[in-house]
Amino acid sequence: MSLKASYQAPVIRVTDGVEEEILDTIATEIAFTLKVNDQVLVSLLCSPAELDAMAVGFLLSEGIIMNRQALVGIRVDEQRAEVHVQLDKMPADWDVMFNKKTITSGCGQGVTYSNTDTLATLARRKPFRISSAKIFELLKQFARSSELYQQTGGVHSAALADGEEIVLFAEDIGRHNAVDKLIGKAFLQGMELDDKLLLSSGRISGEIMTKVIRNQIPVLITRTAPTCMSIAHAEEHGVTMIGFARGRRLNIYTHPLGLILDDVR
Amino acid sequence: MSLKASYQAPVIRVTDGVEEEILDTIATEIAFTLKVNDQVLVSLLCSPAELDAMAVGFLLSEGIIMNRQALVGIRVDEQRAEVHVQLDKMPADWDVMFNKKTITSGCGQGVTYSNTDTLATLARRKPFRISSAKIFELLKQFARSSELYQQTGGVHSAALADGEEIVLFAEDIGRHNAVDKLIGKAFLQGMELDDKLLLSSGRISGEIMTKVIRNQIPVLITRTAPTCMSIAHAEEHGVTMIGFARGRRLNIYTHPLGLILDDVR
Repeated sequence: MSLKASYQAPVIRVTDGVEEEILDTIATEIAFTLKVNDQVLVSLLCSPAELDAMAVGFLLSEGIIMNRQALVGIRVDEQRAEVHVQLDKMPADWDVMFNKKTITSGCGQGVTYSNTDTLATLARRKPFRISSAKIFELLKQFARSSELYQQTGGVHSAALADGEEIVLFAEDIGRHNAVDKLIGKAFLQGMELDDKLLLSSGRISGEIMTKVIRNQIPVLITRTAPTCMSIAHAEEHGVTMIGFARGRRLNIYTHPLGLILDDVR
Repeated sequence: MSLKASYQAPVIRVTDGVEEEILDTIATEIAFTLKVNDQVLVSLLCSPAELDAMAVGFLLSEGIIMNRQALVGIRVDEQRAEVHVQLDKMPADWDVMFNKKTITSGCGQGVTYSNTDTLATLARRKPFRISSAKIFELLKQFARSSELYQQTGGVHSAALADGEEIVLFAEDIGRHNAVDKLIGKAFLQGMELDDKLLLSSGRISGEIMTKVIRNQIPVLITRTAPTCMSIAHAEEHGVTMIGFARGRRLNIYTHPLGLILDDVR
């Protein structure tokens, strides 16, 4: 039995000094345990959908799954709220990895076990060709895509787009989770990432940029702000970072040569 | 030498198909190491200001500092980006605590070592008396308080208010950090929390609610959404939770009897 993404609860609404009881739609949040080769890796809080993609995306973003061969199997045990991932072998530095945790600012206190030193730079990528008008069109389509946000106001979303349209979408109560679910879904479908744009509904922290670099996504677009760490990582590793993309305006923070805007003079 | 809260960097701005180079203001983000009694506890990413309050607030929110006597000393080593906290003794369950980490959804993948089972309920608190008009006035004052947000668009804020005005304010690139800094500042100033409202700029996750409960703050107000875990924690532990407080409207999710709104009929 799957949990629903949202549920209704009675709430007292006060408007201009008048009280009424209404039903409000609230985003569901669950805790599940991620086990890798029968060892508990971590407990994750997230929206209840697409837990297999969430688990795989998390492992990809953390650099624990490095290639397609590494993933032997996934099983979601909804009764126990567990996801079991079978890898071909445990990472050699598993113990070290888990003693070197960093709590990040990811709009909260995120944790990451991954080390940015090991990230491969996107040095040899081709420039991404698109028009700025198309970017604004994609952002509009992106904003309309989140039904759960429209219902609850309490979720984040992430999407992959090619030069023409949005090709994959994910949403979650967690900003980082939405990116992990998206990357996990792409991996499970065998979708290439190195010719896509990533759209994120939220602020870009260093940790989200690390996920983008690790998955070799060349361009990242958000309607809000980047942090200085995300800019530093993007600069160092070859990602074109676009922020404050709203209305008919956007800022290019890093690697402008990695983006050819057809309609810009 | 203190780091600045923001800095200026060249950015390419594209507006209606026209490109120009501008200087954009970006929120600074630093990594610092928190040591407790000479042991490394964790690395935290946050805005560079008020690291002493950040460290103390984090330890309070995690239930590591339980009372005023526990805190023997704090030293900020800006050269090494370290904060050294001296406690009267190490928590008895230190090792257990650090093996039981949960990655939260706090708008990202937060980590918490604290266990909600040990939270004291705010059962015997008096109802908080205020008018709804005053709440909207406080929220307006709160929105104007963040200079850094107005400059960078990339930070979160948190404030404490009594029934009349905002009495303490904190901001950080991390939503959870802003709450931790606020709580740390209140502790360092000897300010009581059990007769205050907490205002938060962001979404309320279960983890933020845990901080609120652990610090016995009776009422929490946000202009955005709560998650279902934060509602469950608030319900269980006696916190009045107000969400979507915007314009002249607000929703009361839990413990409406803990709030007397003078101007509501």
